Amino acid sequence: MKHKRLKILSVPIIVVVLSAGVARAQDPLPSWNDGPAKQAIVEFVKATTTQGNPQFVPPEARIATFDQDGTLWVEHPMYTQVTYCLERVAALVKTRPELKNKEPFKTVLSGNREAMARLSQDDLMKILVVTLSGMSVDDFSAEAKKWIAEAKDPRWKRPYTELTYQPMQEVLQYLRANGYKTYIVTGGGQDFVRVYAEQVYGIPPEQVVGSAGGTKFGYDKSGKPFLTKEPKLLLNDNNAGKPEGIHLMIGRRPFASFGNSTGDRQMLEYTKAGDGARLAMILLHDDAEREYAYGPAQGLPDTKVGTFTQALYDEAKKNGWTVISMKNDWKAIFPFESK
Amino acid sequence: MKHKRLKILSVPIIVVVLSAGVARAQDPLPSWNDGPAKQAIVEFVKATTTQGNPQFVPPEARIATFDQDGTLWVEHPMYTQVTYCLERVAALVKTRPELKNKEPFKTVLSGNREAMARLSQDDLMKILVVTLSGMSVDDFSAEAKKWIAEAKDPRWKRPYTELTYQPMQEVLQYLRANGYKTYIVTGGGQDFVRVYAEQVYGIPPEQVVGSAGGTKFGYDKSGKPFLTKEPKLLLNDNNAGKPEGIHLMIGRRPFASFGNSTGDRQMLEYTKAGDGARLAMILLHDDAEREYAYGPAQGLPDTKVGTFTQALYDEAKKNGWTVISMKNDWKAIFPFESK
Repeated sequence: MKHKRLKILSVPIIVVVLSAGVARAQDPLPSWNDGPAKQAIVEFVKATTTQGNPQFVPPEARIATFDQDGTLWVEHPMYTQVTYCLERVAALVKTRPELKNKEPFKTVLSGNREAMARLSQDDLMKILVVTLSGMSVDDFSAEAKKWIAEAKDPRWKRPYTELTYQPMQEVLQYLRANGYKTYIVTGGGQDFVRVYAEQVYGIPPEQVVGSAGGTKFGYDKSGKPFLTKEPKLLLNDNNAGKPEGIHLMIGRRPFASFGNSTGDRQMLEYTKAGDGARLAMILLHDDAEREYAYGPAQGLPDTKVGTFTQALYDEAKKNGWTVISMKNDWKAIFPFESK
Repeated sequence: MKHKRLKILSVPIIVVVLSAGVARAQDPLPSWNDGPAKQAIVEFVKATTTQGNPQFVPPEARIATFDQDGTLWVEHPMYTQVTYCLERVAALVKTRPELKNKEPFKTVLSGNREAMARLSQDDLMKILVVTLSGMSVDDFSAEAKKWIAEAKDPRWKRPYTELTYQPMQEVLQYLRANGYKTYIVTGGGQDFVRVYAEQVYGIPPEQVVGSAGGTKFGYDKSGKPFLTKEPKLLLNDNNAGKPEGIHLMIGRRPFASFGNSTGDRQMLEYTKAGDGARLAMILLHDDAEREYAYGPAQGLPDTKVGTFTQALYDEAKKNGWTVISMKNDWKAIFPFESK
């Protein structure tokens, strides 16, 4: 009897799944509400990929760049990479016990969250340098991969890699389906983001541009060559560093760029200054309920991360960038919500 | 009568062309003689791209790197880029007349080839810095593009861009047809090589890794953003700089690398140190008649460029790199010979 009932129930469920599948195939951006943001993306893709359109872009020049933290995934309450570095301090002092009683490492080891929140940018930089350099490229990659597979966001209790924005995943796929090469251009560490970008976004390591340190080529005792991560910054991929990094690593001006903070301003300006159709989009975090709301554009106090200032908002309006409202433009925020 | 004869002659010619076309389709490397070098390439491609083979490499990891000067095109008697920089000095002193009577610019302007050949590495570096920086990225690109379209090699009286090696062009195409991403990894200037790499080799700007200077983001008088080439070296892409540059720009270890000098040693070592099938090949210039012969491996005196030393030859033999003999392995040298 129970068995029979289950069988009957299964029929309408299958029908629902199928019709959702059909709707998805027709709409490349199903998690976006109709509105100027969705329209801007679709019109840009149509104009630049339709043969004969005056704004047609040849396939080899189709480059799109995306900031990561706050644009492709959650950046609050703390950048994922900073959390990684803070958590690495405990492992680090095992091999370098002399750091145990030195600041800022002592504060980090205390576990006192309030004291940690008061650490200066200089302190954070010291922590980043010792936790992101001094080991081989392969060892770093293995450690970061292990951490990212296990660490969880405190609010959603899910791996950070699940906290990507479903609507942005759809934009990545839609652009790639139309011949665009998608790049991450992040202020975060290039090697850190490369560890998971392929699995999380389908973006291979060679398409991740980030803040990058030097490496040093050498040989181990058996004569095998390897690269060591050096505490020397080659590229600070924030602000003006973003277009500079794009030139260094890609060598072409993007046709589309996506950001969410003043750190992305120059990248958006550089993109928009090119000829033809150029898409510049900036994500406004205005959804305290489903994600976060921050930045003075909402009359909220400025924060350390993801600063979307009034000046940036004004520049966006003036220069024809499209502002994405998380609250109004997105039907769903995370992939796990739309499954 | 004469007319009829010509008609009769044309028949066998068409047949020959067609059968050569068929042979080409069957052999991906028609300009290579049968031998260990050709065999090494074909076996590597088969092993790494055949599903089920223990040495199979997934498509996203298929990376192949090529030195440029002396590996993909002629580097004698002088690197093309050095010729460009020397020729730019005349244009440069028009805007910066104070350099006219200063060394090493004075010597370059004298046109005295013997005196120019005696310029030190430091002198050359000074010339490279002032001719490759201080202008916008777009201006540099336009100037270099114009020069490369007009300049000719003194021996063959052809544009430098025609002096690529036909057998290496076939290797590039063969690897790409088998899912490999092909990169140039050159000691030459990244921005210089990017100007022609797509047209000459089918390699897009984002797949050119080279010695790279910094750029500086700024705005012109109308507020339009642009990048200026700075005289600051970010990456010296020679020797140990090659694997370091590969890590910075690609983030994966190549499965195949091709070089021709001690400047490629570390790249070849780094490639060969990876797991599974790895192809390391080094080109020996031993064909004075069709191209050049240089390097002590031929008992010839060492030269400033493209140094293939005895130590490098010994390392190649010891580590399982394959030496390509230009004289014995290549049927044709240049594309214009096989057309």
